[in-house]
Amino acid sequence: MKRMVYADNAATTQLDIEAFEAMKPFLLTDYGNASQPYSFSRTAKRALKESRETIAKCIGASPEEIYFTSGGTESDNWVIKGSAFSDPLKRRTITSAIEHHAILHACADIERLGYPVTYLPVNPHGEVLPQTLHEWLTDQTRLVSIMLANNEIGTIQDIKTLCDIAHSKGAIFHTDAVQAVGHMHIDVKSLGIDMLSASAHKFNGPKGIGFLYIKNETAITSFISGGKQESGLRAGTENIASIVGMAVALKNNLSHLDENVAHIKKLEQKLIDGLHEKEIQFVRNGSSMHVPGNISLSFDNCEGEALLHRLDLMGISVSTGSACNSEDTQVSHVLQEIGLSDRLARGTIRISLGKTNTEEDIEIILSALSKIIK
Amino acid sequence: MKRMVYADNAATTQLDIEAFEAMKPFLLTDYGNASQPYSFSRTAKRALKESRETIAKCIGASPEEIYFTSGGTESDNWVIKGSAFSDPLKRRTITSAIEHHAILHACADIERLGYPVTYLPVNPHGEVLPQTLHEWLTDQTRLVSIMLANNEIGTIQDIKTLCDIAHSKGAIFHTDAVQAVGHMHIDVKSLGIDMLSASAHKFNGPKGIGFLYIKNETAITSFISGGKQESGLRAGTENIASIVGMAVALKNNLSHLDENVAHIKKLEQKLIDGLHEKEIQFVRNGSSMHVPGNISLSFDNCEGEALLHRLDLMGISVSTGSACNSEDTQVSHVLQEIGLSDRLARGTIRISLGKTNTEEDIEIILSALSKIIK
Repeated sequence: MKRMVYADNAATTQLDIEAFEAMKPFLLTDYGNASQPYSFSRTAKRALKESRETIAKCIGASPEEIYFTSGGTESDNWVIKGSAFSDPLKRRTITSAIEHHAILHACADIERLGYPVTYLPVNPHGEVLPQTLHEWLTDQTRLVSIMLANNEIGTIQDIKTLCDIAHSKGAIFHTDAVQAVGHMHIDVKSLGIDMLSASAHKFNGPKGIGFLYIKNETAITSFISGGKQESGLRAGTENIASIVGMAVALKNNLSHLDENVAHIKKLEQKLIDGLHEKEIQFVRNGSSMHVPGNISLSFDNCEGEALLHRLDLMGISVSTGSACNSEDTQVSHVLQEIGLSDRLARGTIRISLGKTNTEEDIEIILSALSKIIK
Repeated sequence: MKRMVYADNAATTQLDIEAFEAMKPFLLTDYGNASQPYSFSRTAKRALKESRETIAKCIGASPEEIYFTSGGTESDNWVIKGSAFSDPLKRRTITSAIEHHAILHACADIERLGYPVTYLPVNPHGEVLPQTLHEWLTDQTRLVSIMLANNEIGTIQDIKTLCDIAHSKGAIFHTDAVQAVGHMHIDVKSLGIDMLSASAHKFNGPKGIGFLYIKNETAITSFISGGKQESGLRAGTENIASIVGMAVALKNNLSHLDENVAHIKKLEQKLIDGLHEKEIQFVRNGSSMHVPGNISLSFDNCEGEALLHRLDLMGISVSTGSACNSEDTQVSHVLQEIGLSDRLARGTIRISLGKTNTEEDIEIILSALSKIIK
């Protein structure tokens, strides 16, 4: 049987085995509804509290600033739609043109309801320049939402500077950190941000769970209303097993962050060096400031779709364009916005490495690419 | 150690062990993102398709009419908020005054945005009379949303008749069936309804997952926007493990529905008979048409909270008022709406039996109640 190489860690990651073990009792025996007052729910309630504390600590927040959601997409929708109607004098949202669709489509939704949105352009590295935000920001801007790291090309934004600019005109600042949390050090207080979205399955937690950091006293209303869970801001019976799994996964990832990053960067360099050695022509997209392991490569005279399928036949899983849905075969908006030619954009794949990838994986990928492209 | 009696199955249920076993591979090994095109995701993609078919079959729907959500609360919010803005000429929503807070608070949210909502009164059994809907329905009504079974008192509504009335004026009809799915036979086609909400953890599935049935061609927009998952109507990486667990749990519950219902009804009768035998004075709330095992009892000169805590000390888990959140100590809106006196409302507990309860459980509950109340 051929060796499988999973190199699509920006799409999803393998669940941390300790996270799974921590989830098990809450799936099997301690199934009490955490919002019920009797003793049987006490274990679940304690786990909820401890998981919130763990996650808060991982990003430098206070526990009461962590709100559990069903994932990054819900967190992003909550931010865009839950703050849109809060101030009739500040109706505008500013975001970037290379955000994830969870932000862009939520923005389109509020635009249809009459709330204007500005989409900031980026430079060829995918960076939102502080000057650009300066130019578009007015005191009618309610919210600025700029992603911390891009999912397709890995570019990391200068969030602290962008946040300071937003605050200078009285706007609140959100960052979609789905690709960053668990993969780099993040301290919400030193960044100064008001909100941050995260998704567990991007950092070896389970799917269907995420969180939104909301700084105390930030103006946002409930998006999913009902029961009084999550301080009355996010209703629905708490998904304790997944919350616990998320907390364990995040803590574990961050406990080994420096060694994981060193390992992934080494693999990344091996891949790039190997491409040069094999004289495979490519353009690497993104910025020198990028999430470790996120490698967007464009090949001339090549169809990304076909490349992906040939790699798949060789047992290698990578992504083409945006990883969000295989049914979307349009050229990625991110690659368009960084000014990549249509021809190069169509020949683009994203290899995203994780902590479980090995040097052998890289050799297999290199060998496959050289067979297909040369 | 004292025997624990869990009698709060309307709040949440124990996960079906076969559902857990079915979830495991998708948590541990087949973790591929179901929206990615490579072979590694094929198992997840197939499981998604099969789970959708299973669930559709369980409620008489077509697979493409099933949309996975993070639970009943999200499904309810989606219905209320996703259809509110769809037709400027039909701005009104009609619901009942005894709905779950997931409906009532979502309705309050759209009211704040200028979309009017009518809250229909119920009779003392908690029933929405067809005549009442007739009186309030106009051709400006866009949506009628009436729950199938009430969570606090178990009353089952005459959904087919109410739905026919709604349709007669061109309104679409939704039912919150969170307390009903998996506990009674439901066929969406014979009921004629346009939408139905369900939550897995109420029928021995995992927490954090549910679905919304949306009849083909129903006018509703996306609520959580982003990627193209769920036919572009509900974005976010698919939570395959939980979806699979939900499908297995529902199928298993329905395969043994008649025997489960017979068992639960027998226990219910044993409890009521026992209360009479022990000469404990009580009022039973709800209707003769109720979800099996949902037993709302009011005791005079008794505080429900205190009763719950004393039962808890004896190892028995039951609920007081609405099961949604222990921090809400107001008198339940449902008990107020059925005209229960404040005094009786405060002395109300809900015992909700499930398929795993036994005759011995009932004896323990009866013995405890007679010690506390007499």
